[in-house]
Amino acid sequence: MILYEDTRAPNPRRVRIFLAEKAMDVPRRAVDIMALEHHKPEHLAHNPLGRVPYLELDDGTIIAETVAICRYFEALQPEPALFGSSPVEQCVVEMWQRRMEFNFLGCVAAVFRHSHPKMAPLETPQIKAWSEANVPRVEWMLDFLDTQLADRQFVAGDAFSIADITALCAADFMKVARFSIGDHRTNLKRWHEDVSARPGSVA
Amino acid sequence: MILYEDTRAPNPRRVRIFLAEKAMDVPRRAVDIMALEHHKPEHLAHNPLGRVPYLELDDGTIIAETVAICRYFEALQPEPALFGSSPVEQCVVEMWQRRMEFNFLGCVAAVFRHSHPKMAPLETPQIKAWSEANVPRVEWMLDFLDTQLADRQFVAGDAFSIADITALCAADFMKVARFSIGDHRTNLKRWHEDVSARPGSVA
Repeated sequence: MILYEDTRAPNPRRVRIFLAEKAMDVPRRAVDIMALEHHKPEHLAHNPLGRVPYLELDDGTIIAETVAICRYFEALQPEPALFGSSPVEQCVVEMWQRRMEFNFLGCVAAVFRHSHPKMAPLETPQIKAWSEANVPRVEWMLDFLDTQLADRQFVAGDAFSIADITALCAADFMKVARFSIGDHRTNLKRWHEDVSARPGSVA
Repeated sequence: MILYEDTRAPNPRRVRIFLAEKAMDVPRRAVDIMALEHHKPEHLAHNPLGRVPYLELDDGTIIAETVAICRYFEALQPEPALFGSSPVEQCVVEMWQRRMEFNFLGCVAAVFRHSHPKMAPLETPQIKAWSEANVPRVEWMLDFLDTQLADRQFVAGDAFSIADITALCAADFMKVARFSIGDHRTNLKRWHEDVSARPGSVA
């Protein structure tokens, strides 16, 4: 199989961290999104939505969408379980994964993509008001996570999961959108230091 | 368990159709989102993000997020499989589910929520330019789905899945956002007639 990705974007990083946590290695091919390479016919033939990452299996099957790709790797290599173990735990992890995706990474990305001049070719039209509307949502999420992490180690409970991976990529992506965790959010800061210290986080 | 929902919104409908396809019945409690009931302390204590649907299990565990709730029901009642069967099939279903959620239902909702006066209390601030930016995305998706459905019966393949449920709820929600499938999209129209004829679609 081949994983198509651009190492600068947060979604491919989610997949790389997931693979590192599983100690899996998958052949990768670079797609330059700033040069709009993912919108070229060869890539649109694979993923008509024009996004990376996507995974091409040996039989030609295409799996696009970060979480779908990660779930494929979870099936190939179940341990350590990053989507939760028991059915209830799996649903709680999915809930938090989605919250981190929709209400954290998605909001950070909206702030960045709709305000930074470099994003103009990728985000058409850029809408400054939409960027601004997402600023308080990111701040709300940072406060919320700080409260939640007061009594547990990881985002979805006591085990590291894909929800932490999405949250870490969102937190680190905040830099380009000019947010910071801040020293006053002590629980969130502790969590960020913990997950950043894991070997997979450099992926 | 108790399912908290508002029958007028598309996400609770996704869960109801899912349950109907499984022939499952779950006690439900109405939460009036137009009266902002989901933002009252008792509901925020359950789901701090202030959204419905959410599921309260008998031990007090809360599962929010439509797809996480549906996955819980899939675990309780595996047949018929609505998240796919083999690992690859499950990933392909998840890919399509996400495409239908992000690039179809999400775009229809953005058009509606950021333009309709009734949505002003729920969507603050309303950004007309963001509504307008999503109009061509919906039209693109309708054309894309029409092409995709030329050679298969359902959104994610030959079996009905949660991807069809999300797509059906998006397609029917288009009415409030003033889109229509149109007679010229013959494959999409055939699909819509098929899935609308299933008993669960009236849920």
